[in-house]
Amino acid sequence: MHKVVIVGAGFGGLAAARALIGTQVQVTIVDQRNFHTFQPLLYEVATAGLDSGDVAYPIRVIFGKADNVIFRMAEVVGVGWEDRQVQLADGDSLPFDSLIVASGATARFFSIPGADEHTFPLYTLSDARKLRDHTLRKLEEVDAHPDDHPDGALTFVVVGGGPTGVEVAGALAELLDVATTHDGFRFHRDDGRVILVDGADRLLTPFRDTAAGYAADTLAGQGIEFRMGRMVQAVRADQVELDDGTVIPTQTVIWAGGVTAEGTIADQIDLKTGQNGRLVVGPDLTVAGHADVFAVGDVAAVLWGGDEPEKICPQVAQVAIQSGTYVARKIIADLDGRSTPPFRYRDKGIMATIGRRAAITQLPNGRIIRGTLGWLAWLGLHLWYLVGFRNKIVVFINWSWRYLSWGSGPRIIIGEIAADPGEAENLNGDTVKQ
Amino acid sequence: MHKVVIVGAGFGGLAAARALIGTQVQVTIVDQRNFHTFQPLLYEVATAGLDSGDVAYPIRVIFGKADNVIFRMAEVVGVGWEDRQVQLADGDSLPFDSLIVASGATARFFSIPGADEHTFPLYTLSDARKLRDHTLRKLEEVDAHPDDHPDGALTFVVVGGGPTGVEVAGALAELLDVATTHDGFRFHRDDGRVILVDGADRLLTPFRDTAAGYAADTLAGQGIEFRMGRMVQAVRADQVELDDGTVIPTQTVIWAGGVTAEGTIADQIDLKTGQNGRLVVGPDLTVAGHADVFAVGDVAAVLWGGDEPEKICPQVAQVAIQSGTYVARKIIADLDGRSTPPFRYRDKGIMATIGRRAAITQLPNGRIIRGTLGWLAWLGLHLWYLVGFRNKIVVFINWSWRYLSWGSGPRIIIGEIAADPGEAENLNGDTVKQ
Repeated sequence: MHKVVIVGAGFGGLAAARALIGTQVQVTIVDQRNFHTFQPLLYEVATAGLDSGDVAYPIRVIFGKADNVIFRMAEVVGVGWEDRQVQLADGDSLPFDSLIVASGATARFFSIPGADEHTFPLYTLSDARKLRDHTLRKLEEVDAHPDDHPDGALTFVVVGGGPTGVEVAGALAELLDVATTHDGFRFHRDDGRVILVDGADRLLTPFRDTAAGYAADTLAGQGIEFRMGRMVQAVRADQVELDDGTVIPTQTVIWAGGVTAEGTIADQIDLKTGQNGRLVVGPDLTVAGHADVFAVGDVAAVLWGGDEPEKICPQVAQVAIQSGTYVARKIIADLDGRSTPPFRYRDKGIMATIGRRAAITQLPNGRIIRGTLGWLAWLGLHLWYLVGFRNKIVVFINWSWRYLSWGSGPRIIIGEIAADPGEAENLNGDTVKQ
Repeated sequence: MHKVVIVGAGFGGLAAARALIGTQVQVTIVDQRNFHTFQPLLYEVATAGLDSGDVAYPIRVIFGKADNVIFRMAEVVGVGWEDRQVQLADGDSLPFDSLIVASGATARFFSIPGADEHTFPLYTLSDARKLRDHTLRKLEEVDAHPDDHPDGALTFVVVGGGPTGVEVAGALAELLDVATTHDGFRFHRDDGRVILVDGADRLLTPFRDTAAGYAADTLAGQGIEFRMGRMVQAVRADQVELDDGTVIPTQTVIWAGGVTAEGTIADQIDLKTGQNGRLVVGPDLTVAGHADVFAVGDVAAVLWGGDEPEKICPQVAQVAIQSGTYVARKIIADLDGRSTPPFRYRDKGIMATIGRRAAITQLPNGRIIRGTLGWLAWLGLHLWYLVGFRNKIVVFINWSWRYLSWGSGPRIIIGEIAADPGEAENLNGDTVKQ
């Protein structure tokens, strides 16, 4: 039986594996986590709007009934090209006839001093939970000493004005609203600042000007401040420094400045990489020199195809899903002796939510849907793509509930994931129970 | 203003603080966690039936609108009796006129060698999540090497045949059912064993014989094995040894063998403790020698009152709730110059769930409701007492969903909370992203 190994169970890997269910190939999908993460809603987990389980779905549940798909929880450490095996950290290896690399990316820090060490990226569920715990702890710290807390303890700096940056900034402003109106914190809403920094001169560069202007107005109405056209020069534990010399005291810098495949498994497996460490692929998504090795999603420099054969697709969920599905179909077509036309990305538009009842949808024809209608479109689409019916229901209820009451949202500090293990020990109380 | 400090936001502390909302006293409720834990459902979190956020409720949301109640997230390290202040780990202290100690208990290991080190208690949310991660990891490990895994990797030993032990044993058996029928694990259901050990000769000693018999039959029908009348002699990383010399190979021992106040803050504050380290209290729940210091819930040896003035109440949620409410009312009555009759526990019956559509409710008059009706009573009562309307809805949906489909349940390994930090690092992939 033809063996397909898929590395990674994000949008790309999952789409490929799903498209291979019930076909004549034997699939093994490998991920170091036992769940798929719905990344577009990580900012909601980070800002205590949703719970971890709402955006995570057990991979086994998806393939439990599929006879030809096996899940393996393991870390991939390399690929043996001679013996055609994927090498796992536990010493095992998985032989393959076709390999799909769908291992995703990681935060891109542009070698900015301190960025890796002192900022919170937002790419994994673990990232989101760390940011939530940290943020809620800062609120508690300031509340405990309302007149005597470090400068910047309530200042949240978001680096990056793309959809993730805009979404997390809006959600942080909402969290500060709820905290001061519903949670009895003893500081004023105005004590909390959310500052968005971006090197471009406007937000949401992939969107049209009108959409970006609408987003900026909406965020400004929520009290968010902007430092546009500014680059981050350095990040330290208690401040961030911009390229004009401005220093912003802060203990929380959220890194939404883009992703890279550099430093991931992608550059340890001897394949050709291009800009940002993304694997270079041909129009059929094979990697150079390997007719049976494919790369999809964020890890790959997927070509747009069609009228724009040289254009590289953005690192978004739709590209991952479409490229994953394409590769699955191509593998089957190859085995059946059928030919497959080159990959062609079908742009379905882009979306960003900005806050309560405010979102932007930009259709491929450039039309903008915004405000409540844009928000409803955003809600509907995210619920549609969210994996698992239970998760859809629970997220829908959470959203409805928050929309009606403001009151909900799991604003709990799980505690085990503090940056400082000593701190976690105290907060957990595993030794001293209170 | 009369200052009341409440140490702990479990059932007892929360009930006291709630009963003091809008009264003439100034309340500070202190907990090292920012959430209240609904302990009766921790076994569901541990067995991947519910998500953490479903059984945790942010304390601030409860008191956010209460002008006279302040929440402080902090660890209590002592009490200064001279200056009447509760001392916090961060160096602050909270002055009080009345003090309510509601700090709960911790697992009781009876000095059994290895028990503290190698078993999983089930008293805190952190405990529950550790057990879930560990259990799901064991399933993955065995799946990765179906023919070559350590003896006992799929053997789950539950120590304690009270409600917690019975509930977790039943839920583990269900988890094994679901794992092998829905999740595509490559081992057989029969490879997984759940063994319940108890020193008594029957389950559920607080229940009548018929109820215990029903529970035993139901659990046996789920494939659970019993070692009744046996004590645990020692626990090691890969086995548990019983007092008859039997050695059971296992990597997962769940400790449901009771709780103690020993080793908690209760024995660091110079108050008289009795059996199990519980604080000795009078009929009005004051601790000996302190007319304005009260103890409630698991940390206190609460007297039953009424016809049984010497009987000590069990460490259950109802006792905590009733004793907490009593103390709050007594403090107000004292300030108003009214007298308060001694505490009297109103037994509302006891409950245990055993699995899908099987539970026992024993009413105070000894009547037993079991089977589907008992299960519905159990569901209803737990939903009623679960804090927060959103949590009630989400838990209800989860239960309905699982009842209809078996398929749901957040079987995700969060990963950060592995026992071994090195392991957590790998599984998180914070350094090497896949």
